[in-house]
Amino acid sequence: MSPKTQKKTKKQIIQEAAVRLFRDKGYSATSMRDLADAVNLKASSLYNHISSKEEILKDICFENAHRFLDGMKEVESLPGTPAEKVEALLRLHIRAATGDAASVMAFNDEWRHLAEPLLSEFMALRRDYERRFMAILKSGMQSGQIQDMEPVVALHTLFSSMRWLYDWFQPGKKLSSEKVEEDMVRMVMKGLVK
Amino acid sequence: MSPKTQKKTKKQIIQEAAVRLFRDKGYSATSMRDLADAVNLKASSLYNHISSKEEILKDICFENAHRFLDGMKEVESLPGTPAEKVEALLRLHIRAATGDAASVMAFNDEWRHLAEPLLSEFMALRRDYERRFMAILKSGMQSGQIQDMEPVVALHTLFSSMRWLYDWFQPGKKLSSEKVEEDMVRMVMKGLVK
Repeated sequence: MSPKTQKKTKKQIIQEAAVRLFRDKGYSATSMRDLADAVNLKASSLYNHISSKEEILKDICFENAHRFLDGMKEVESLPGTPAEKVEALLRLHIRAATGDAASVMAFNDEWRHLAEPLLSEFMALRRDYERRFMAILKSGMQSGQIQDMEPVVALHTLFSSMRWLYDWFQPGKKLSSEKVEEDMVRMVMKGLVK
Repeated sequence: MSPKTQKKTKKQIIQEAAVRLFRDKGYSATSMRDLADAVNLKASSLYNHISSKEEILKDICFENAHRFLDGMKEVESLPGTPAEKVEALLRLHIRAATGDAASVMAFNDEWRHLAEPLLSEFMALRRDYERRFMAILKSGMQSGQIQDMEPVVALHTLFSSMRWLYDWFQPGKKLSSEKVEEDMVRMVMKGLVK
């Protein structure tokens, strides 16, 4: 499912450098020149790989949106209780954040800089994903498997608990991504189910 | 404890406008001129209230750091089990985020733009807070009250679960901040304790 074990493409390397610049300088203040310097290319060579920072942002946002929507479609089509479906989606979020931190970070934070009509298109995908996640939570509450609470609070507490992972988890250090996934899933699912 | 029921001072209004600009344009791209426009002041009048955007960022970061450290000191000095202490700190985080969203948002995201020596000073306060929070979690694990897991995973999952509150919770709408606090505390504490 993850392409992370393969060698990184030039485009991935450029995306990752772009995201670090967006974080450190802000999206608006980042120039193509900064980006060329960060990946040790001349500006003229950079344009062989990417036409603008807007294109990088668009790619990151829509690739991630479709990654999560594809995961949602798969989970919806499987048999399983609502809690099992929530757990499968949690694992998808955690693996995305631990395996592809740079891209998930931009997806979380920088989508506000998309220009129209991309911004509206992106927000519609996001709302669709949230609506379908919420439907699974509600069906779990109705069947008595998931704690009775405001569904929107449950949804956002779940999302938030995983959203900052890219910021504190450093792959390749003492703590493995498998251990993080195991502990987080256990803690979050115990909080959610009755 | 919260000054939010009082009328906002000019400085608070400027801080809130600054934080919205930092979010929308990025800290680096925000100018004092943008800020003056946002609060309907002439640049010359703005300087009566605030000397630079660096000063605004410094105030926001250090005021919040001390708010959390004061809360920690109070919690540490009280009797109570580790789980009760964690719950009290959760409530502090949630109230800060629901009551003072703008300032907590900048505290979360924008501290990276502090200049030295402020940056190191701020990071030391942050590490001190995290170290003390972690000590409470570990003592709860040792006494068997809190689930056995990597303490650093528990710590960051707790912090993260509350960190995006400013982004999705809108005060004054249908969902009250009391209901959000009640549901979040119940969900998160159930996930944490044995």
